[in-house]
Amino acid sequence: MTDTYLEQGERIAEQLSPGLRDALAAKYDAMLPGMSESLIGWAYGHQYARPGLDLKTRQLCTVAALTALGGQTGPQLKVNIGHTLAAGAEPREILEAIWQMAVYGGMPAAINGLNAAAEVFAERGIIPDQG
Amino acid sequence: MTDTYLEQGERIAEQLSPGLRDALAAKYDAMLPGMSESLIGWAYGHQYARPGLDLKTRQLCTVAALTALGGQTGPQLKVNIGHTLAAGAEPREILEAIWQMAVYGGMPAAINGLNAAAEVFAERGIIPDQG
Amino acid sequence: MTDTYLEQGERIAEQLSPGLRDALAAKYDAMLPGMSESLIGWAYGHQYARPGLDLKTRQLCTVAALTALGGQTGPQLKVNIGHTLAAGAEPREILEAIWQMAVYGGMPAAINGLNAAAEVFAERGIIPDQG
Amino acid sequence: MTDTYLEQGERIAEQLSPGLRDALAAKYDAMLPGMSESLIGWAYGHQYARPGLDLKTRQLCTVAALTALGGQTGPQLKVNIGHTLAAGAEPREILEAIWQMAVYGGMPAAINGLNAAAEVFAERGIIPDQG
Amino acid sequence: MTDTYLEQGERIAEQLSPGLRDALAAKYDAMLPGMSESLIGWAYGHQYARPGLDLKTRQLCTVAALTALGGQTGPQLKVNIGHTLAAGAEPREILEAIWQMAVYGGMPAAINGLNAAAEVFAERGIIPDQG
Amino acid sequence: MTDTYLEQGERIAEQLSPGLRDALAAKYDAMLPGMSESLIGWAYGHQYARPGLDLKTRQLCTVAALTALGGQTGPQLKVNIGHTLAAGAEPREILEAIWQMAVYGGMPAAINGLNAAAEVFAERGIIPDQG
Repeated sequence: MTDTYLEQGERIAEQLSPGLRDALAAKYDAMLPGMSESLIGWAYGHQYARPGLDLKTRQLCTVAALTALGGQTGPQLKVNIGHTLAAGAEPREILEAIWQMAVYGGMPAAINGLNAAAEVFAERGIIPDQG
Repeated sequence: MTDTYLEQGERIAEQLSPGLRDALAAKYDAMLPGMSESLIGWAYGHQYARPGLDLKTRQLCTVAALTALGGQTGPQLKVNIGHTLAAGAEPREILEAIWQMAVYGGMPAAINGLNAAAEVFAERGIIPDQG
Repeated sequence: MTDTYLEQGERIAEQLSPGLRDALAAKYDAMLPGMSESLIGWAYGHQYARPGLDLKTRQLCTVAALTALGGQTGPQLKVNIGHTLAAGAEPREILEAIWQMAVYGGMPAAINGLNAAAEVFAERGIIPDQG
Repeated sequence: MTDTYLEQGERIAEQLSPGLRDALAAKYDAMLPGMSESLIGWAYGHQYARPGLDLKTRQLCTVAALTALGGQTGPQLKVNIGHTLAAGAEPREILEAIWQMAVYGGMPAAINGLNAAAEVFAERGIIPDQG
Repeated sequence: MTDTYLEQGERIAEQLSPGLRDALAAKYDAMLPGMSESLIGWAYGHQYARPGLDLKTRQLCTVAALTALGGQTGPQLKVNIGHTLAAGAEPREILEAIWQMAVYGGMPAAINGLNAAAEVFAERGIIPDQG
Repeated sequence: MTDTYLEQGERIAEQLSPGLRDALAAKYDAMLPGMSESLIGWAYGHQYARPGLDLKTRQLCTVAALTALGGQTGPQLKVNIGHTLAAGAEPREILEAIWQMAVYGGMPAAINGLNAAAEVFAERGIIPDQG
């Protein structure tokens, strides 16, 4: 990865979740050398850093997909709900993206997604606007 | 379903894909009475019709999720790429939402999603902006 | 949703799990207005209320599918094991529907399903007939 | 596998689909010695042959689960719709088991399942009762 | 199952995890008669016992697949990481098989797999070689 | 991506499938600029190029996982069966890795995997050793 891709990834990761690169490195790099570089440089530096779709919409797409994929991605759904708030989405927009997934991933996946959002909002003292 | 929900669903479905309700009814209602009413009234009347998230972003979320869910939802992915264009998204935005899913659903799911988009664009003579 | 569909859904939900509508409303409607109406009116009023297949068999099908879908639907599997008992199924029939899924969803999914059933039965003091 | 399990499996497989064991053996055993014995002896001899749930309900559970699992199991869904008719289910019961899965596996999975059933019924000249 | 298949399965299961057959029987056979015989005789006696691929590679394939399948198979992933060590794999080989799955099952599945391995290694005081 | 990662990825991709980078670029880069660089540089340069597990075993793990994931990854399974032969695996080893997945991804996934392998072998005139 050129510095450009890795640096791009670090910048976006830092915007979404300050300290993410260091946290990944501390947790995984001793066990699996280069893990944090691969994740940050590729997922954020190559994929999220692309032009053509704004970061907030990218994050709402991620929340929708992780909801539909279900239990397998539970911990990452909570992390990405936080990233989506950091990218400027309203809590209500996040809830709507999750609940719409009842159509595609089934009711259980959507309900589990709502529960994940409720936990994140409770941890942060967020009360969604009921517009 | 009150007329309101069903009517709302028919209005949104008509916007995304003219004739969708009638096509569903013709294909499924003789085999399974009430199928088109349940689908249109619930999926579009209850879920897509909600305030709180604009229709274009809803559709991009759907495209992302169907990509990540993979083969199970192949035919519906193509249908929804069409709906997403009808909701005002640029082809490039659709491609970006699909490709980002390599991070969450894996490379095979993302590549299959790109192939689905390429087919829809070819059928419609669309050449994505490479900006 | 006409009163008819919503009322039908409430009647079936009440039969399967007394107080379900109110519990859903209390937990989700403030966060996501109309959530309980959409779920009860559609899932139970439209889908479960259909003629053509008895409620007990419907519930056994649900248990089988949630088992095969696996971890994503773990909490809902336990809820639906309760609903299936309420629909008149024997504990042994439920275990058989779960264990058969080893053929289709793999051994891990089936074993996790048996564990879910064992928890529900233990909570209710049920000892399955080994006939 | 004792003769008992393998024989049990052959008897049930023959009831559901005459010639199934021989068809599997002809297609797979040269490539993978013992494949048909493992499948018939285990899936039908051990799992389907169990007491505690009647064969028709077992098959409806299988149809429901294969629908919810989606594209991964498309060919087997068609095969099992045939087996479920052979086990005594009405076409309408099969359609209901499939359509109910919209709640758990999402609309795309349920629609693909209906399409599979429509193909099987068309091949056999079956017109479902719309009761 | 002939004694041969069941005995083969018991021998391999004992090699991978001493006492496995008895543990399964104690946990499941009273609830579901014959469960441990079906699992051990088929999964280990028929499938794992086959010639043509060595046991260590079989176990690495299992770890890779359970990682890609994700949350549904979380408990079985930890069990099979233990079995894979028993089959002679280095901890580092296990981590590599897991991390490679980021390409096919997505980053969340791979990260959850690394976390599962970290737990197993911590329980056993294993520190992976970082070669 | 530094030249090192991209170059590493190109070297491994060339070993597994001569011309792969150019084929990807021709098919996807006009539609989605940088796609082939991201895929080759990350999937092969970062992930497959890692030390700690030999390429043949990596490919067998990939075949196992794609089998278990099922329909979503059908086209990529066939591609990777070819890559696994190129990495030095015997046809029989590939069949064994696929069939073992019946235990984890269910019978339908394993049967579909065998069918994919049979197609690849037929295209190449390979007759697996039945040893």
